[in-house]
Amino acid sequence: MKRADNQVLIIFGASGDLTARKLIPAIFDLFRQDLLPKGFAVLGVSRTEINDTSFREKMAGAIKEHASLIEDIELHIADFLLKLHYLAIDTAAVDEYSKLKAKLIEIDSVENTKGNYIYYLATPPTLYSVIAQNISHHGLQSEKDAFRRIVIEKPFGEDYQSAIELNTALLNIFNENQIYRIDHYLGKETVQNLLVTRFANSIYEPLWNRNYIQHIEVTAAESIGVENRGGYYDHSGALRDMIQNHLLQLVALVAMEPPTEISAAAIRNEKLKVFQSLRPLGEDDLFKNVIRGQYVASNVRGKYNKAYRDEDGVDAQSRTETYFAMKLFIDNWRWTGVPFYVRTGKRLPTRVSEIVIHFKPAPNHLFVENDALGLADNQLILRIHPDEGILLKSGMKIPGAGYKVKSVNMDFHYKNLEETYVPGAYERLLLDCMCGDTTLYTRGDALENAWKFVQPIIDFWKNNPDAPLHGYPCGSWGPAESDELIEDKLQTWRFPCKNLSDDGIFCEL
Amino acid sequence: MKRADNQVLIIFGASGDLTARKLIPAIFDLFRQDLLPKGFAVLGVSRTEINDTSFREKMAGAIKEHASLIEDIELHIADFLLKLHYLAIDTAAVDEYSKLKAKLIEIDSVENTKGNYIYYLATPPTLYSVIAQNISHHGLQSEKDAFRRIVIEKPFGEDYQSAIELNTALLNIFNENQIYRIDHYLGKETVQNLLVTRFANSIYEPLWNRNYIQHIEVTAAESIGVENRGGYYDHSGALRDMIQNHLLQLVALVAMEPPTEISAAAIRNEKLKVFQSLRPLGEDDLFKNVIRGQYVASNVRGKYNKAYRDEDGVDAQSRTETYFAMKLFIDNWRWTGVPFYVRTGKRLPTRVSEIVIHFKPAPNHLFVENDALGLADNQLILRIHPDEGILLKSGMKIPGAGYKVKSVNMDFHYKNLEETYVPGAYERLLLDCMCGDTTLYTRGDALENAWKFVQPIIDFWKNNPDAPLHGYPCGSWGPAESDELIEDKLQTWRFPCKNLSDDGIFCEL
Repeated sequence: MKRADNQVLIIFGASGDLTARKLIPAIFDLFRQDLLPKGFAVLGVSRTEINDTSFREKMAGAIKEHASLIEDIELHIADFLLKLHYLAIDTAAVDEYSKLKAKLIEIDSVENTKGNYIYYLATPPTLYSVIAQNISHHGLQSEKDAFRRIVIEKPFGEDYQSAIELNTALLNIFNENQIYRIDHYLGKETVQNLLVTRFANSIYEPLWNRNYIQHIEVTAAESIGVENRGGYYDHSGALRDMIQNHLLQLVALVAMEPPTEISAAAIRNEKLKVFQSLRPLGEDDLFKNVIRGQYVASNVRGKYNKAYRDEDGVDAQSRTETYFAMKLFIDNWRWTGVPFYVRTGKRLPTRVSEIVIHFKPAPNHLFVENDALGLADNQLILRIHPDEGILLKSGMKIPGAGYKVKSVNMDFHYKNLEETYVPGAYERLLLDCMCGDTTLYTRGDALENAWKFVQPIIDFWKNNPDAPLHGYPCGSWGPAESDELIEDKLQTWRFPCKNLSDDGIFCEL
Repeated sequence: MKRADNQVLIIFGASGDLTARKLIPAIFDLFRQDLLPKGFAVLGVSRTEINDTSFREKMAGAIKEHASLIEDIELHIADFLLKLHYLAIDTAAVDEYSKLKAKLIEIDSVENTKGNYIYYLATPPTLYSVIAQNISHHGLQSEKDAFRRIVIEKPFGEDYQSAIELNTALLNIFNENQIYRIDHYLGKETVQNLLVTRFANSIYEPLWNRNYIQHIEVTAAESIGVENRGGYYDHSGALRDMIQNHLLQLVALVAMEPPTEISAAAIRNEKLKVFQSLRPLGEDDLFKNVIRGQYVASNVRGKYNKAYRDEDGVDAQSRTETYFAMKLFIDNWRWTGVPFYVRTGKRLPTRVSEIVIHFKPAPNHLFVENDALGLADNQLILRIHPDEGILLKSGMKIPGAGYKVKSVNMDFHYKNLEETYVPGAYERLLLDCMCGDTTLYTRGDALENAWKFVQPIIDFWKNNPDAPLHGYPCGSWGPAESDELIEDKLQTWRFPCKNLSDDGIFCEL
């Protein structure tokens, strides 16, 4: 196991939600596993005027609530809290960064952190360029004798043009290999396992192409609504919030060619090639192969769920999509003609992320007596969340006379691995960044290409505000129109949870 | 579900073990499922002088002990027993068959069984030809206006020549489609599921050839010794008792081309082609690719197991093999160059029958850090007995940093199919015969070809009585020399049960 060099992790936006819910608990979990370097400190930066003690108290509460490794926490937390420091500055004001610089030099001398800094921007996106410029104004971006890395949270741009602008701004200050564009989806074990499943096994790769695969589904469903993010979400929508980043990244991992080696550059080169091969959306696609929806009020298991337009912070006439589904193609040697169906939505029946590989059916002439049974195709389901694992659906003989076939499941659940601790996404990604591993972070060129691909949809909706926006009841699987995307009329989207009722949800995997 | 016509099942050897332990209980289970025709009778035939009542009483006891569907048995057994009849004759004496004929005519008139007869020969093999001739002497083989079928138990011949002679004798009297050479292995659900697994799924067939498969193992292990069959076994041995029939049949099912349809003729044609493509054993093979062994005394889990040579009925100098392993090749387009490793033995650590498909390894350059872990190949294990099911071993990512790969199992167990009754092998095969379905019975040409393939081994041992016969301790996986058959020195035979100890056995599937 490689080990990170001594360093300071500077969190901008330290008084915010992300810091308390995700970042500090993840760092604590790393601490509990002795994965932090010997010389290490966190410096929380924010406008809020508090001192180290208050910051530590607040973080202690957050750790107890959100960390994974909280056994015997009282024995360990005090040592950890000593690594936390705080500095109150206006991060938009360039002059204030002299305080930051002084504080970092002080920490370096006490903690032996050697001038290695990671700047984690847990701030509103409007501050990304500003903070980067302010850092550079004080020479804090320079990697002479030490490393300097910057972590950018999503959203990374709000369209193709703004993404290019943000990239350009950052690349004026940092080199590409200093920039860590985080997508917490890529930190999930099962997402990384995609590479292993595909390339460490000999049985999948021969089947992994247009000769044997009928179509592929990529789903990220949420059961919650916009919660307290209405104001943000109403300006974003499902396309920007989920598709452009998370789901296209999953498509890239499923579709990419084998990399020449397991390295950041090799893997990111292959992912880029997928984005470059996405068939550009034409007018016909925009009318036919893209579906947007918005949830309307309904009762779900006896509980009233209000309509999206009635959520706090949402425009009462909003045409923002809370559901999005599309059919896309990858025009390359491996995938030509294989539809990828991608969907995401809020207020769906359950929270689930999964990829479903549908293999072409076997010739059915041998088992014609199964016509009535509707012989299922073979499916490989890569479940990313929850209950990470994989599931293979194949046909077996029903015992007894004849050759009746039934689809049965073989599955593997990560949770069944004995004594294996599955690190959280932020924990994994932070450690990677601390070690200088960019593999699971998005490279600028891939990001721009992903925006480029979705830009026609953004433009289409902008220019055609009356383009259909389908209502769907909370607790349903989205607008019925999305089923019409599926080319094969014998197929539907997979429903990972078959029934939604007051009695609860049945989940297959 | 097709239904059998009214008929009489005549069992020769009705006072024997097979009748009581297997045949009558299986027929009772069919009765409980209402799968017998309306007009149906069993006529037990044997030399033993008993009457219908005694026969029924004895069978009632056998059913209670050996049938599967014994719930509320007292409500049903009386009705069933009324279908059982008995006739004491000397089956070797041709004149006695006039009594048989008269009895059958009597049953026909009472039970409306229409002259349809199945002759089940549960007798010593020496009587097979004799009984067939006696039947024919009285015209009872003729299919004018009714069907007449004969079921022959193994052993069907004791070498190539005697198998041809027996076939010739039977074919002088019956047509091939009247002859049912039973191999109870082929009645097992998982054996039939082999066809479904291979041909109802699209994911396996593309991989099912020399391009993707490294080698295939076929194992039938028994934990028992020869029990009370020493006298028979010492003249048979593992090659005749298990390899020539059961295991070569399994090889054929794994290796065959897709049949043009699911029919007896189509499937048996394809199996025959496998037997015809078995690479004939040359002198070199007989020295190097064939291993025989015999168990010697040892303690197994605290219990003393005597040596084979000390078993009742066994020659104290016996060189009969109780273990047999070989490497064989199928010289056709699909399998050239893929070794099939076949083994069977008594007094092995557990009772298990399974087929293991070893896929060629993936190129390992991506996951070199796994060299130390010994990255396992992908394996598909088709478990025939016990706990029928299938198991797929593949590589998954070990959670955490890096890309360490671990072999994990995905499995499906037949017993997990809800509310599905898995019929026993005899139950299935008897019903097939009653319905005229020969699919799971061995055709004469395939049988002769299987004998032809093993004949050089029989000759070699006969001509070289000092050819090595390796001792192996009871409770071991046979002679160590059998490991040397495996070409790939990184591979061994799969050990379905890893440890044999006083604490019990660990079985993976």
